[in-house]
Amino acid sequence: MFVNKMPHYEILSEDAIATLDRGWRRIVSEIGIEFVKPEAVKLFEAAGQRVDGDNVFLDPDFILEQVAKAPREFDVQARNPERSVHIGGQHMAFSSVYGPPFVREGEVRREATLDDYRNFARLAQSYSSIDSVGGVVAEPNDAPLDSRHLDMLYATMTLTDKMYMGNVVSGVNARDTLAMTDILFGGRDTIEETPALISLINCNSPLRWDDRMLDAQFEYSAANQPVVLTPFLLMGAMSPVTIPAALAQQIAEALSGIALSQLIRPGCPVIFGSFLSNIDMQSGSPQFGTPESAIGLLCTGQIARHFGLPFRSGGGLNSSQVPDAQAAYESLMTMLPTFLAGTNWVMHAAGWLEGGLVSCFEKYVIDVQVLEMLQQEFTPLEITEESMAFDAHAEVGHGGHFLGAMHTMERFRTCFYRPFLSSSENFERWTRNGSKDTATRAGEIYHQKLEEYQPPPLDEAIREELLDYVNRRRHELGD
Amino acid sequence: MFVNKMPHYEILSEDAIATLDRGWRRIVSEIGIEFVKPEAVKLFEAAGQRVDGDNVFLDPDFILEQVAKAPREFDVQARNPERSVHIGGQHMAFSSVYGPPFVREGEVRREATLDDYRNFARLAQSYSSIDSVGGVVAEPNDAPLDSRHLDMLYATMTLTDKMYMGNVVSGVNARDTLAMTDILFGGRDTIEETPALISLINCNSPLRWDDRMLDAQFEYSAANQPVVLTPFLLMGAMSPVTIPAALAQQIAEALSGIALSQLIRPGCPVIFGSFLSNIDMQSGSPQFGTPESAIGLLCTGQIARHFGLPFRSGGGLNSSQVPDAQAAYESLMTMLPTFLAGTNWVMHAAGWLEGGLVSCFEKYVIDVQVLEMLQQEFTPLEITEESMAFDAHAEVGHGGHFLGAMHTMERFRTCFYRPFLSSSENFERWTRNGSKDTATRAGEIYHQKLEEYQPPPLDEAIREELLDYVNRRRHELGD
Repeated sequence: MFVNKMPHYEILSEDAIATLDRGWRRIVSEIGIEFVKPEAVKLFEAAGQRVDGDNVFLDPDFILEQVAKAPREFDVQARNPERSVHIGGQHMAFSSVYGPPFVREGEVRREATLDDYRNFARLAQSYSSIDSVGGVVAEPNDAPLDSRHLDMLYATMTLTDKMYMGNVVSGVNARDTLAMTDILFGGRDTIEETPALISLINCNSPLRWDDRMLDAQFEYSAANQPVVLTPFLLMGAMSPVTIPAALAQQIAEALSGIALSQLIRPGCPVIFGSFLSNIDMQSGSPQFGTPESAIGLLCTGQIARHFGLPFRSGGGLNSSQVPDAQAAYESLMTMLPTFLAGTNWVMHAAGWLEGGLVSCFEKYVIDVQVLEMLQQEFTPLEITEESMAFDAHAEVGHGGHFLGAMHTMERFRTCFYRPFLSSSENFERWTRNGSKDTATRAGEIYHQKLEEYQPPPLDEAIREELLDYVNRRRHELGD
Repeated sequence: MFVNKMPHYEILSEDAIATLDRGWRRIVSEIGIEFVKPEAVKLFEAAGQRVDGDNVFLDPDFILEQVAKAPREFDVQARNPERSVHIGGQHMAFSSVYGPPFVREGEVRREATLDDYRNFARLAQSYSSIDSVGGVVAEPNDAPLDSRHLDMLYATMTLTDKMYMGNVVSGVNARDTLAMTDILFGGRDTIEETPALISLINCNSPLRWDDRMLDAQFEYSAANQPVVLTPFLLMGAMSPVTIPAALAQQIAEALSGIALSQLIRPGCPVIFGSFLSNIDMQSGSPQFGTPESAIGLLCTGQIARHFGLPFRSGGGLNSSQVPDAQAAYESLMTMLPTFLAGTNWVMHAAGWLEGGLVSCFEKYVIDVQVLEMLQQEFTPLEITEESMAFDAHAEVGHGGHFLGAMHTMERFRTCFYRPFLSSSENFERWTRNGSKDTATRAGEIYHQKLEEYQPPPLDEAIREELLDYVNRRRHELGD
């Protein structure tokens, strides 16, 4: 996996952090946070917090005591140990887009299917810069609603050997996810010792955690599986229109969810989540890749480190309807700050289109291209006496060229990152080759990747046990 | 103009800078720099440097003494004082693409004409984020070769009231540029007191300054007009394949050119130039927006500041043949580091396509969009007690929305940057509106901008004097 050893780009002064600190403290203590699950409220009450119905008025120092119990860093195992990831520190793990009901492929935009899900899983398996297919890379609308989480999990577990995300639609789905993970890894003890999945728990911002997400959080935290406590903030709708206010709210929400996880199981792994952008104030539609979201992202990294927590943010977010220039510049407006901030868990790293409504195959390939470039860019230079290559200068002298220099000949195969998608063909050659733009080439690459795809080996007994589980549970769920 | 008050992203350690320092010192003293102009060699010889033909073996400390004479910061006046720029410090000035012989407009790629040049000048005038049309925004192939610099200057001076770049094809062209600038600004004294143009002097890398560029440099430096001394480095061809070696070479070349300017006129303004990317080692074609070029850019800012010099780098560089996803992500791979490095003079900020062979109208609009977003992003947050918007939280409470909150109503018109090109329309609306991708929309905006264009006022007597000069000189030049 990728380790980002470059400096963090931090833009908040100590004064600014102190102001944000006063901000979130007022929110949790004076307004409180709603937890729409009686068991959650009871845990807080038992721990001495003031409760009024679903609302919990939280002592900020109590929150910080709970947060301090969470590990700064932790491992998440994949069934292929070489694909296991480390969450926290300088490590960055990347997963695919999460949640879209639609797919786009060439000129066609349509409802996503289970076959699409499988193809995205194959793509995620194929690219080494992607650490996880994620969770719902595309909603399989043709699979029965109540049991499609089983289909997605089975596809993920058999078509990839990378780590994955847990289903969070309900506590029932979370238990199924854990049960299938037990089968895949050989029992609950194994995954309690080293977690095997990450699950996304979104806040119903502002200041409310809803019952279904909380049900899932209870299951996962109790089983020592990391959850990403993520305020869902589109400034102007779910938070105020000033970035500092959104940041204070984000801290209040994320830390309150993290505190809950620590009450459920002290020491269980958590991730400080961030999903922070803004709406268009005229149309109300969400915007992505905005300057405001980039600023928020840079601040979030610094804030999460301030609290000693690994964090999630970033991705190839954009509002574009097609994988064109806007899709690319908005995505990079988010992905480059994602690296500058040193984000530990990056969701939506590949495939996101149209504000997250669409998983796009071509965009997946474009995003992987950008990801590879950024991983190269965020690898520190080694500046040594030898790297000065004085002999090459002495050999070439004035006005010559280095193409045939000894120094070049020894390094030309590996000296620069070679893009697999970008074209630097001259115009005549590019025209002869069909005048294919980037999206067209990405479509060809995606098809080729699927053709070349080889499923990773899996013990046949485990596969059968998984399939039995899926069939039994589907029957029980009435699908 | 834009002032970048955000922190610089610096990635070189003190040890690394010390190593680079030893690197350039060895190059200038042991290999030497060629100056293919006897007057240049004589100046160095008279100053005590060892000379062998065109080659000058330079004492690094002598170079640093000369460099120390150059101003850290300086103003460049535009004929409209509100458009004047400051070069250095936190200031960033942006000019258009420079040099392409072709233009692209929609599906058509063709030779550039003088009319294209004029249209790009109108676009440069129309966008406040662009400080200068630059120099040769498109080569006017339909204008007579020997006098086309006069046509470009006349177009720039009459269609825009922003600062511009000097012609560097020859000493003759430089003198014409200065003479027309004298007319526009009311005499040589005025522009010697506050410079009125910036000129690009490229090194014929490795380690050679050629006669025609040097002829222009002599004219401009003698007239106290800033020159950008720019090593032209495509790693693998004009420099070794290791980034550190290219950086050492870049310092050697830039500082040697700067030292020459200070011998021509001590204290004259200069800019540390950088044009640093790499070739594809299989095809030999130049690549842009590469990870290696981004790393080089970040280092260059730090190096220029180390020597107390304003610097030039960056732009919307890319290799793409069309204004598509690749054009956008490669451009941003350069433009975002351009801001992170705090580049003072940014050439190629708008319009660059196809490795610099093409000025593209749609790309110009796309680049301006990105530029506006980045200028917003690199504006520091103000985090104050008031910005916490606690009252808004108290008003909205849990699970509500902020659309109608008082805090929102007071700020909704200006709270977020509103893009003029990016679309966040929902799919149905976007389809009804013609399913236009970003390049198509950019084409519409470009035509609309040209329709709305109003020429800035210019004293009729000055216009006539300029025209007389152009006509007289064209006749003298035999065109």
